[in-house]
Amino acid sequence: ATDHSPMVAAGRAVFLMASSAVTLTCGNVCVLCNNIVSFNLFKILSFQSLKVILTQESLLVLDYRGLSLERWLVLELAPQLASQTHSLPFEFRALEAILQHKVNKLQTWLNDVEPSILDTLESLVDPKIVSADRSKLHFLLQNSKSLSELETDIKVFKESLLKILDEDAMIEQLCLTKWTDPRIFEESNLGIDHCEEMELLLENYYMQAEELANKTRELKGLIDDSESVIFINLDSHRNVMMRLNLQLTMGSFSLTLFGLIGVAFGMNLTTAFEDDPRAFWLVTGFMFLGSGLIWRRLLSFLGRHLHPSTPSLVIQTLQFHYTTLLYV
Amino acid sequence: ATDHSPMVAAGRAVFLMASSAVTLTCGNVCVLCNNIVSFNLFKILSFQSLKVILTQESLLVLDYRGLSLERWLVLELAPQLASQTHSLPFEFRALEAILQHKVNKLQTWLNDVEPSILDTLESLVDPKIVSADRSKLHFLLQNSKSLSELETDIKVFKESLLKILDEDAMIEQLCLTKWTDPRIFEESNLGIDHCEEMELLLENYYMQAEELANKTRELKGLIDDSESVIFINLDSHRNVMMRLNLQLTMGSFSLTLFGLIGVAFGMNLTTAFEDDPRAFWLVTGFMFLGSGLIWRRLLSFLGRHLHPSTPSLVIQTLQFHYTTLLYV
Amino acid sequence: ATDHSPMVAAGRAVFLMASSAVTLTCGNVCVLCNNIVSFNLFKILSFQSLKVILTQESLLVLDYRGLSLERWLVLELAPQLASQTHSLPFEFRALEAILQHKVNKLQTWLNDVEPSILDTLESLVDPKIVSADRSKLHFLLQNSKSLSELETDIKVFKESLLKILDEDAMIEQLCLTKWTDPRIFEESNLGIDHCEEMELLLENYYMQAEELANKTRELKGLIDDSESVIFINLDSHRNVMMRLNLQLTMGSFSLTLFGLIGVAFGMNLTTAFEDDPRAFWLVTGFMFLGSGLIWRRLLSFLGRHLHPSTPSLVIQTLQFHYTTLLYV
Amino acid sequence: ATDHSPMVAAGRAVFLMASSAVTLTCGNVCVLCNNIVSFNLFKILSFQSLKVILTQESLLVLDYRGLSLERWLVLELAPQLASQTHSLPFEFRALEAILQHKVNKLQTWLNDVEPSILDTLESLVDPKIVSADRSKLHFLLQNSKSLSELETDIKVFKESLLKILDEDAMIEQLCLTKWTDPRIFEESNLGIDHCEEMELLLENYYMQAEELANKTRELKGLIDDSESVIFINLDSHRNVMMRLNLQLTMGSFSLTLFGLIGVAFGMNLTTAFEDDPRAFWLVTGFMFLGSGLIWRRLLSFLGRHLHPSTPSLVIQTLQFHYTTLLYV
Amino acid sequence: ATDHSPMVAAGRAVFLMASSAVTLTCGNVCVLCNNIVSFNLFKILSFQSLKVILTQESLLVLDYRGLSLERWLVLELAPQLASQTHSLPFEFRALEAILQHKVNKLQTWLNDVEPSILDTLESLVDPKIVSADRSKLHFLLQNSKSLSELETDIKVFKESLLKILDEDAMIEQLCLTKWTDPRIFEESNLGIDHCEEMELLLENYYMQAEELANKTRELKGLIDDSESVIFINLDSHRNVMMRLNLQLTMGSFSLTLFGLIGVAFGMNLTTAFEDDPRAFWLVTGFMFLGSGLIWRRLLSFLGRHLHPSTPSLVIQTLQFHYTTLLYV
Repeated sequence: ATDHSPMVAAGRAVFLMASSAVTLTCGNVCVLCNNIVSFNLFKILSFQSLKVILTQESLLVLDYRGLSLERWLVLELAPQLASQTHSLPFEFRALEAILQHKVNKLQTWLNDVEPSILDTLESLVDPKIVSADRSKLHFLLQNSKSLSELETDIKVFKESLLKILDEDAMIEQLCLTKWTDPRIFEESNLGIDHCEEMELLLENYYMQAEELANKTRELKGLIDDSESVIFINLDSHRNVMMRLNLQLTMGSFSLTLFGLIGVAFGMNLTTAFEDDPRAFWLVTGFMFLGSGLIWRRLLSFLGRHLHPSTPSLVIQTLQFHYTTLLYV
Repeated sequence: ATDHSPMVAAGRAVFLMASSAVTLTCGNVCVLCNNIVSFNLFKILSFQSLKVILTQESLLVLDYRGLSLERWLVLELAPQLASQTHSLPFEFRALEAILQHKVNKLQTWLNDVEPSILDTLESLVDPKIVSADRSKLHFLLQNSKSLSELETDIKVFKESLLKILDEDAMIEQLCLTKWTDPRIFEESNLGIDHCEEMELLLENYYMQAEELANKTRELKGLIDDSESVIFINLDSHRNVMMRLNLQLTMGSFSLTLFGLIGVAFGMNLTTAFEDDPRAFWLVTGFMFLGSGLIWRRLLSFLGRHLHPSTPSLVIQTLQFHYTTLLYV
Repeated sequence: ATDHSPMVAAGRAVFLMASSAVTLTCGNVCVLCNNIVSFNLFKILSFQSLKVILTQESLLVLDYRGLSLERWLVLELAPQLASQTHSLPFEFRALEAILQHKVNKLQTWLNDVEPSILDTLESLVDPKIVSADRSKLHFLLQNSKSLSELETDIKVFKESLLKILDEDAMIEQLCLTKWTDPRIFEESNLGIDHCEEMELLLENYYMQAEELANKTRELKGLIDDSESVIFINLDSHRNVMMRLNLQLTMGSFSLTLFGLIGVAFGMNLTTAFEDDPRAFWLVTGFMFLGSGLIWRRLLSFLGRHLHPSTPSLVIQTLQFHYTTLLYV
Repeated sequence: ATDHSPMVAAGRAVFLMASSAVTLTCGNVCVLCNNIVSFNLFKILSFQSLKVILTQESLLVLDYRGLSLERWLVLELAPQLASQTHSLPFEFRALEAILQHKVNKLQTWLNDVEPSILDTLESLVDPKIVSADRSKLHFLLQNSKSLSELETDIKVFKESLLKILDEDAMIEQLCLTKWTDPRIFEESNLGIDHCEEMELLLENYYMQAEELANKTRELKGLIDDSESVIFINLDSHRNVMMRLNLQLTMGSFSLTLFGLIGVAFGMNLTTAFEDDPRAFWLVTGFMFLGSGLIWRRLLSFLGRHLHPSTPSLVIQTLQFHYTTLLYV
Repeated sequence: ATDHSPMVAAGRAVFLMASSAVTLTCGNVCVLCNNIVSFNLFKILSFQSLKVILTQESLLVLDYRGLSLERWLVLELAPQLASQTHSLPFEFRALEAILQHKVNKLQTWLNDVEPSILDTLESLVDPKIVSADRSKLHFLLQNSKSLSELETDIKVFKESLLKILDEDAMIEQLCLTKWTDPRIFEESNLGIDHCEEMELLLENYYMQAEELANKTRELKGLIDDSESVIFINLDSHRNVMMRLNLQLTMGSFSLTLFGLIGVAFGMNLTTAFEDDPRAFWLVTGFMFLGSGLIWRRLLSFLGRHLHPSTPSLVIQTLQFHYTTLLYV
């Protein structure tokens, strides 16, 4: 009577039984859906891009997207479900296969993103670098975008698992074999309960997803921390350069100040010293010595004011050279 | 006896039955409300700007705001509900139409905002840019404000859905047909349950809203990450410029220092070398060579201190030119 | 036997019946409390600064703070409760009046803070501004402090509503008339349920508070986003100024370098060119042309290195002037 | 049979009855514990550093830390519990005393930290300050560390209260007198319920703790906002200084450019103008006027480019002086 | 019939009974598992890297990772469990030992990380430092990465405890002895309940984990706050240096401006003052005095504009020297 239009939107479906896999067209799906539904022993599950109808002995995958998923469904999942090595009921094996596939995909994604982020951060945080390499920044930005998407995916996956785990009734419903096979049902009331095992299985994958979520969160935190360190590094370099610049500006100021004396004596105006042979040496000496002293005074003020640590070495060397120059 | 004043505030209402739509005035609404209420089979729902009373065969929309909403209600929703192609009960179709409309509006909003944000960020993050384009910043700010509003809207929509989903009794009440049509009620006790279908329908729209929420969250994260990258870019450029500036300051300092010798010899004072023809070349050579050497020494100090990567090229070129100049 | 000391701390109380309002002293309050309590039909509610004991036909407001609140209680709330226009029971009207008053106060607060914050941000974000206006920053800081307090108030109000809404038993207890008036009780079991109406009323105010909370959250987000934009703006301006500075430093360096030639020829030393009339023009030309060429070379290096966008115009103009100067 | 080792770790205990207080050694505690436990009417509560066993007429405080706590227990709590002015049962008074003590301690802590933080922020946010006072920063850092610890303490206290409030059974168990005194038990079934009163008492302290938590949260938000304002202030100052620096660099550049002409004429080379008495004034005038014009051109470019607001005044003054100088 | 493959993945297991410990291979584990399971009195617990099957008198540890864990299991846990000093049942002692081990490990980790982070921050926050020590930044980054991992570990541990604490049924199941020993079961119904004691034990460790979590959270907050302070420190230093630089640039500008007069008079052009003996002193005096006055004017403008606090001292000293120089 009623149709299930919200369940069959894209019209692509794969029907997997324990022994075979068939790709279905939209029409077939609807027929099949109604058949399954009429048997009354089915469970609809949805994980992001995957909607499945799980029965006791078949798995109907609806509305999947992407070719790689189809290939996996037909080429890998089908034989895996067909193999009879496991002693577990069909619905367990099907669910485990789907969850394992999903977790593997997320894990692979994280494995792709993590090392490249760590490498990029490692090279960006390097304290010797004056300016950040912009191509690496761009790369980091794209990776952290990818990381956000991964985080969302893991979150959605966790939520869909949690929705099942939070309702005991839903887990009961998932143990389809238990309700059809009287032998299993009796066993269940003894020690080995299907529901408990189903809960363990789902919890196991929830824990794996949780672990992935923790790793992505740590990675995001590391990116934030590294950015702070990059900022402090860049700021520190700037401060060091600014101090060197200030020291040189002090030197230039001193030289300009005392150079003015030279300029004054260079004017075509009459001074009393034109013919005094000592005047040249006195004035020149005064110029160089005076600028040297003022510079030294300025530097020592800066030194007292800013408590310099290491890079004043060059200035000391320079001053030494300057002083040497004066005495040569 | 009691009135329903909190429900009818704005006095604008549209009454939609399976076959027709009527726009009502405030008075009619109250009469209608009391009629509906007396039949005892109704459900009041509210989604942000929309308050509806849903009965088994009519939909009373109260207190809506905005003309576009009215147009949609009368011109689109009415014919849609009147069409009998669906085999689902009226309340399902009405609810689905309202939810679909809401999700569509949110999706359209996101589709408007997302590409313009991505474009703006793309151009702002460009590592070649020394200073951020301010008009783009302003644009980005307005877009992220719009994004916040969208986020709030999605959050409110999700919460109103969640409130229904969290109470099983409320979902039961929503399946109005089930309680009036004995045939449906019996069917429901067999395989096809109306409540479960209602839950699937609501969950479906909740998932869509959740997906939109995830996308806006990712977009917000991307804006934050991009801003960090913009800051690092601007800081890096500043550091590069500051180093170039420092290198040139070093050059100017050297030239000023040795230029002082030239100024000294330019004074109108008696030196012993006035008539020595080699003196000019010696002193000039000493000036240029000395300043070149000191500059080179300062640069190599800076190089050792800051581990320069690329942009020292220009300075090397410059030094080469300088040295070439000396030997010409 | 027992006393209710935790309930009556400040000793200021207003007793509102359907017909009159009395301001009470501490002693009266205790007597009244015990009277009310002995009737066994009362409900104690507390909203932040307001603790009320609600009975079927009176409202006892305890421990309120602030004169404006007292004025409102006596001058506005009392007549409002006395008016018999509403057909709703007393407890509904009293509760609605209190909640409406609270929501109005919060809304007024937000309406005060919001436009001034938006104005301040608008003027601070202006991309033309080189340095932020500090008085506006101070004003913004005070407003965002006020916004935080408002946020806390809304949060507390929401929580006190939520506490009632989360417990169905509490809502039942609030419908005092239902339990005393057998006529109402019977009606309630038919279509019109007092409890449901009470829930709708409380939910309505919860939704309004939620909306206010959303707006404050958006406003806080806007302040954060704007601060980022202000930082990027200031950084951008700095980078533009730094590039101009660097370009001028390059010019000064070139001029100093080639000015050294002039200084050299200005020395009182014998050169072979003293009497060569072309020498002056050659050397002068070399000085200006050389410095122009070196500057152009440095600028083009910087241009290639930093991909300048617009402000190089001035330098081009300058260079044009400079070149024109040379050829005049 | 079983021992209660996890409960008695530190071995310091105070035993408070309604009439007396005894400090116990480890051995006595164990004996006492077993005695209390055998009576079957006790409740174990733990608030951070305080573990208490509450019976109907005694309070056993275990494992407390700190001397001040012991002094409070013996010197203040004991007499307070012994006084018979309250008509409330012993367990109420004991619990209230402990909770009041805890809330008082937290309140005192907040009262210590809050004003010093507000003062420090007030002086750091001052827009006139070019560089932040570092000792104040250090002080702020220590205070915000203390604030974090306070926040944790409040959070733990709130959680321990919430754990009791969330379980109705636990509150019932706490009303020890109710279960032993048949008179009270009967009264309880009438209007005055002990459990409800216990819940009101606990809720009252929970609300106080919540209020403290809100205040610390606001304070933390204020610190964050203030830091943003400090950064914007520092950045603004830097931009203002940088523009002044740029304007002066423009002036220096103009002077150097036209000073080169003077240097050129100062060379010991033959020009045609040596004996022209107007040449000096022409060239000098050209130097000063030219540099003035170029500077003005550069400034107006910067002005158009950066839309200066106030501090260009000095440059205008300077230019006025400069122009005046030229015409004197 | 069913196998427990998800439980036995790594194949490493240790079997601990009250009296002995055996390391098992994969095959044995499966046999043992099935044996244990058939007895129907067991409980499976998992804490991160540790999965255990707890029975009434043995502990089977599955899938542990790391040698140190194995050594602890065999060498420390086994004798500890074998000792009969405790009167508590086996499952209590085993659980306590495992939880204690886990908490100890986390505590040790925190004790390793905390002091080194505090030390590093202490030295980085030092207000005297112009540029942050980069090796310390790197060290801090690694420590905060370690802190994040610790935080995750604590979170996972807390969640696994919470999962047990949230379900009363699970705690009941954990008290294995209670269900097998009728004597204990009867006692339990009297005063001493095993379940309550189990809950106290688990809660005790939960509280310890919570305390660790609070400490790590505070530490993370401290790192963030310190980074802000570092940024403000670096920015402040930069502003101070920039003001000094600006003050010197003002001096240089003044000297260049008035030096131009000297350059003008140095030109080989005819002025009327060549032979005036006072001209030299007048012009020289004008140069020095004029530049001094302009500088002083610029400084006072800057002073009024920026409200300098301390470091203007050097400039005052300098100006004093300069003025002294003029009068000598």
